Amino acid sequence: MDKNKNISMAVIKRLPKYHRYLEELLKNDVDRISSKELSKKIGFTASQIRQDFNCFGDFGQQGYGYNVKELHEQISNILGLTREYSIVIVGAGNIGQAVANYSNFEKLGFKLKAIFDINPKLVGIKIRDIEIEDIDTLENFLKDNSIDIGVICVPSRSAQDVCNILTKNKVKSIWNFAPVDLSVPEGVFTEDVHLSDSLLTLSYLMHQS
Amino acid sequence: MDKNKNISMAVIKRLPKYHRYLEELLKNDVDRISSKELSKKIGFTASQIRQDFNCFGDFGQQGYGYNVKELHEQISNILGLTREYSIVIVGAGNIGQAVANYSNFEKLGFKLKAIFDINPKLVGIKIRDIEIEDIDTLENFLKDNSIDIGVICVPSRSAQDVCNILTKNKVKSIWNFAPVDLSVPEGVFTEDVHLSDSLLTLSYLMHQS
Repeated sequence: MDKNKNISMAVIKRLPKYHRYLEELLKNDVDRISSKELSKKIGFTASQIRQDFNCFGDFGQQGYGYNVKELHEQISNILGLTREYSIVIVGAGNIGQAVANYSNFEKLGFKLKAIFDINPKLVGIKIRDIEIEDIDTLENFLKDNSIDIGVICVPSRSAQDVCNILTKNKVKSIWNFAPVDLSVPEGVFTEDVHLSDSLLTLSYLMHQS
Repeated sequence: MDKNKNISMAVIKRLPKYHRYLEELLKNDVDRISSKELSKKIGFTASQIRQDFNCFGDFGQQGYGYNVKELHEQISNILGLTREYSIVIVGAGNIGQAVANYSNFEKLGFKLKAIFDINPKLVGIKIRDIEIEDIDTLENFLKDNSIDIGVICVPSRSAQDVCNILTKNKVKSIWNFAPVDLSVPEGVFTEDVHLSDSLLTLSYLMHQS
């Protein structure tokens, strides 16, 4: 896996999509697939696909295509899906509840450990057997439990404060749904889901057409 | 605006972020900003910023920085935010409700016209004064109303069917939250929000560190 070290973000961003398609192929009992066939399904060019897979090692045999099971395993490895990740969600509004209810995350190895909210009306309500807790208990919870990923689903104005509590208490990754860019200490990873940025890409495309 | 024609997707994807920061600067009554100052805030290099803005025209004056109001207006123009867009949401689960409740979209000019769901328990419930309607009425609604953007918040298995109904009835843009890639007729734009793809980017980064 030494090849992995200098992989561009563009390639990394394509990996989850490969993983999703290979999972689909596995479900449909497909054993082998050529880059050309995969290209038709996934929309990247065959040469792009071959180039991407070459970043990580030798997965295919010229003329025989890729072994789907092997390739799926390798990409799972690369994506770090061979272990479990513990998650807390902060903010139990619509987005927080949507993330909590998304059963596929659990299947991929992301285990929801707790949900927090500031709203007393939400505290005590159960989502998938997990009771929403008061946000004031977040810090103590993090001191007692090792958490890998903090999901921030609070409004913009509170997002940085929540982020600070998480990172001060050894949460190493932030999945941020608030429409702000967060400052994090070195060594902490952030991944943003900025819905309005995505919507504006669409208005751009419509406007230019 | 002739310069706009051959702009790379990478630049386009940065525009909403510029728009967001410039809006913030406007709110704080900042008149002018240099690419260097903007770089500190936004995280792109100053030369990247200058290069991006050059794609669209001459916004700055060497040594004087950019006029924030003018730049914000121009980027709003480029993003197509000078007109209104009508929206329907299909699927009123957590994600659908989150999108419906996101008041900032309305401010940007995206007007929610209707929400549809298959679940009889949800039909009739109001979200921001809009009653959730039965999905069986979607097609007729689209025949009677001109809709720009269809937001797909249904489970994967129904997403393509919903997409077909939308595009057959002249909806020109699809904002897709289902974890599948949709086939659309030529001339229809799609923008995906694939939450699990985003989460797997995070596990990749944690795993490689």
